[in-house]
Formats: sequence, C-alpha cells, structure tokens
Amino acid sequence: MTDPGLIGWPIPDPEIPAATDPALAALANVAAAAFRSARGTLTRTELAEKVGMGADGTPTMRLDELVDGAIAEQVNRLGVNLLSEEVGVVDNGSASTIVVDPVDGTANAVAGVPLSAFAATLVRDGVPVESLTCWLDTGRCWRAVAGEPTPYRTTGRTSLAGAAVSLLRPQRHTVDAWWRVADQASRVRVLSTSCLEAALVAEGATDGFVDAGSDTHRIVDLAAALVLVPAAGGCVLDAFGRPVEIDNDLSKRWSGVVAATPLLAEELAGAIRG
Amino acid sequence: MTDPGLIGWPIPDPEIPAATDPALAALANVAAAAFRSARGTLTRTELAEKVGMGADGTPTMRLDELVDGAIAEQVNRLGVNLLSEEVGVVDNGSASTIVVDPVDGTANAVAGVPLSAFAATLVRDGVPVESLTCWLDTGRCWRAVAGEPTPYRTTGRTSLAGAAVSLLRPQRHTVDAWWRVADQASRVRVLSTSCLEAALVAEGATDGFVDAGSDTHRIVDLAAALVLVPAAGGCVLDAFGRPVEIDNDLSKRWSGVVAATPLLAEELAGAIRG
Repeated sequence: MTDPGLIGWPIPDPEIPAATDPALAALANVAAAAFRSARGTLTRTELAEKVGMGADGTPTMRLDELVDGAIAEQVNRLGVNLLSEEVGVVDNGSASTIVVDPVDGTANAVAGVPLSAFAATLVRDGVPVESLTCWLDTGRCWRAVAGEPTPYRTTGRTSLAGAAVSLLRPQRHTVDAWWRVADQASRVRVLSTSCLEAALVAEGATDGFVDAGSDTHRIVDLAAALVLVPAAGGCVLDAFGRPVEIDNDLSKRWSGVVAATPLLAEELAGAIRG
Repeated sequence: MTDPGLIGWPIPDPEIPAATDPALAALANVAAAAFRSARGTLTRTELAEKVGMGADGTPTMRLDELVDGAIAEQVNRLGVNLLSEEVGVVDNGSASTIVVDPVDGTANAVAGVPLSAFAATLVRDGVPVESLTCWLDTGRCWRAVAGEPTPYRTTGRTSLAGAAVSLLRPQRHTVDAWWRVADQASRVRVLSTSCLEAALVAEGATDGFVDAGSDTHRIVDLAAALVLVPAAGGCVLDAFGRPVEIDNDLSKRWSGVVAATPLLAEELAGAIRG
C-alpha cells in the first residue's frame, strides 16, 4: 500500500459570523490555520500517525496533536479554561471554559474526505451559552447563543418512519440497534463527523443523527449541539436517558441522539434501546 | 412537518481544469448555473416535488428536471448526442455522446446536505474517453482522459480487512451483503452521492465504494468512474460480473464496485456475492 501523498485540497479561512464571542472566533481561526499547515506539509500517513494517548482515553493522531496544541497555546493567551479531546482540562482560573473538539472527523481529515469540523462551546459557570461549529474544508460556520433566535430551523419532523437519519458507523456489538434505526428511515447517511452532522440537523438538511448505542460520544462531540440544536427547534439527548452535561471527566461516554424535535428524539432513543 | 425554506448555501462556479473538453466544460457550467438558480428560488419541498418519470424508470424531482432540461438545450446547441438520467437519449447524429448525471446525490441536493455532483463522460464511437466530475457544493472538479496520466492516485490497498469503504445505504433485501462488507472494513461511510464517492476513491481518500448487491447503479452513476478511477490506478466492475459498458438502455442496472486496485475490487465483489 502506498501513501498517495499530500492532500491537495485547500483549507479556507472560517467564515465566522458577526458577533461571535471573540475567544471562540480566535480558536476557530487558530484551528483552521494549524489544520491548513499540517495538511500542507504532512502526508496522509504522517497526519494519521498515532503519537500518544489523548485525555479522552483514545489514541491521538499527529493531526489532532498539532491542532489541539495550537488551541491550548491560544487558550493560555486568552486566559480562559479549556476542556479538549487531547490535552484535557486546562484551568486558567476563569469563570469561562471553552469545550473544544479541535478536529471532529479526524479519520476523514487525515484521509482527505472533505468532512471535518472544528467545534467549540463557551461554558459559563457550568452552563453552555454559545457555540461555534466550523466545517474546516469549506469555512462554513454555524453559531448559536442559548436563548437567542437563530437563522437555523430544523425540519420539524416528529416520527422516525420515513425520516432522514445520520448514524455513526455500525459496530459489531450494536449492529441490531443500528439496523432498527436504519430500517425505518427513508434516508441513511454515515458522514463520520458528529459536529457537522448535528449542524445539518439544526439547519433542516436532515432529521436526525444518532450514536446507535455504542457509547462512542464524548462531551466534546455533543457540547456544540447542546446550544445549536435546541436553538433551531431540535433536541439533544442520550439514548439511555443519562443527562448530557458538561463534565471535566473526559472518560464519560454517551449514545447521543440529535433530532429535529423532542418527539423524534424520544422515538430514536426508543429504537436504539429496542 | 414544516419546510425550513430555501437552502442558504451558495453554489460556486465549477473550477474546471485546463484542457477539459469544451463540451464537458460547457455542460458543467450549465448544470451549476441551473442548480444555483433552482436552489435560490425553490424551497426544499418544491425542489423535491415529483414531476414525472425519468428515462431511467425512476421518479424525476423538480430539481433534476430543471438541471437536465438546461443540459439538453445546451447539447442541442453543441450538436452532440446525450445520454442522461431524465431526458434519456438525444441523438444529434454526432460520433460523440455525452453521458450525464445532472445531479448525482439528488436527495442530498434537495435537502441541503452539501454532497451532490455533476458528472459527465465523453464517449466516442461507444468508448468513454474523458470524464469530468464536479462537486456542485464547492466547485471542485476531477477530470481524466483515458490513457493519459492524472494527478490522482488511489491508496493502492489490495484487501478488504481494514479498508475504508463507502456504500450505498443498506436496503432490507441486501442487508446481509451490506454487512459482510461493512463488518470487515475499518471505516464505513454512506455519503449518498456515487460520483463523488468514486472521485474520493480515485484520489486516495478512501479505498472503495460499492453498491452491495442492490442493483441500484445505472450507467450515469458509473460512466465517469470508468475513466477516472482506472486512470488513477483503480478498478470499476460489477459485483456479479456483468460488463459495465455504455448502453442506451437506461433500464440496465449494476451493483458497481469502485476500488483502489483490481484485487480489492474482486474481494469486495466476492464479499457482496457471499
């Protein structure tokens, strides 16, 4: 097997919406710049090299390390706290914590599948107040503020039969739950980028997105959706009823259900539980 | 259920590579312009409205009709023949026929999932000689000429175990074959846009793309891959061994297998047959 080399596609600057919190905006720019630099100089094999173990207990690829390192530096400059997939908790004594998934869809990003995202959520005194999701391959951004109107509106769909649903890829131990969801849906997608898939639910491009019971989701995968999706009329919950909340313990896992409406979310969760 | 309205994302001009056949380039530009116009004026519901039956025997959505109509007009101006999903065969008495999928990933395109493509293949005296695939949502294009070097190179992977494979969505009658492939793969994606998924195999972003035995693929879904993928070192075949060739009979179906190497293609086909 040969490495087909550098990934030729450019990484544009994020199109950050007006009025975005300056710390979120700064981190998105830093992430995109680090991502661009890594993709411009490292081959697919080099980007994907496992260089250690992340704070979340999963292996860290070189691309993650480079982007998360750049984010950690910027966070220290800004004087806010950080909760991130790879470096874990950085406590700068602030009332504000930013929860970051530096490269959501890392497997896509290191292979050259143009579906990867940066997602960050501003948390004040434990409560998520603003989110910014950026599709790194195109620069498109989604921003939401808890309790404020957004331009995004979900489809409003309330039932699974005939719905368009994105799922994490099926795994052997959860394939029955996966198929219970997929079999009832009219459209099934597996894009392998949770934050982007949640954004597509928020803007009404798809009806739902689920981890079908594999408990793969960490808080960094779901934090931005906690702000963005309810602001658009949708709902985020865990298939097994555990509260999805900001927690410094990065070993915590959920089977996230992101849906156009609370009714659809409950039906998806029920299908996953079987 | 409410329609969340117009899809706000812009459709850029295709970035057509230098030296592209002028007729292929003209059709890509016409397709992108018609797509942009439709998305700028019609809601999701209006774009998806079934307005008739296509030449391939599947229902035609309004978006397909608008884009394919614009293409048929341009083909008559150019004086070449056309073989297209919706309008079928247009014979202008030329030795050149262009096989077109006007909007590959129509379900994505009408919903606002940014994964849809235009694909066209120039055929001379029955032989595919040049292909152009354009990712309509970003303007990115892949071009190849049969027998000439390309900048694209597949991953070179030769075995399914551990491969990254894209599949058409699972259907009830073929779920066993679908799972035989997915279970052995290390990465599974369902992007719902065959022409774009074939392009990702050509450029080494993923190892393979299959219709796992559902006989959904038509010649318009596979024609561009017939030029693009072998030029990059890969292989296109049918899971059941039927020759994949240009045919004016649009009711013909295949279970296409697009892979980084002939060895991987044969292993994927075997896994589908079971």
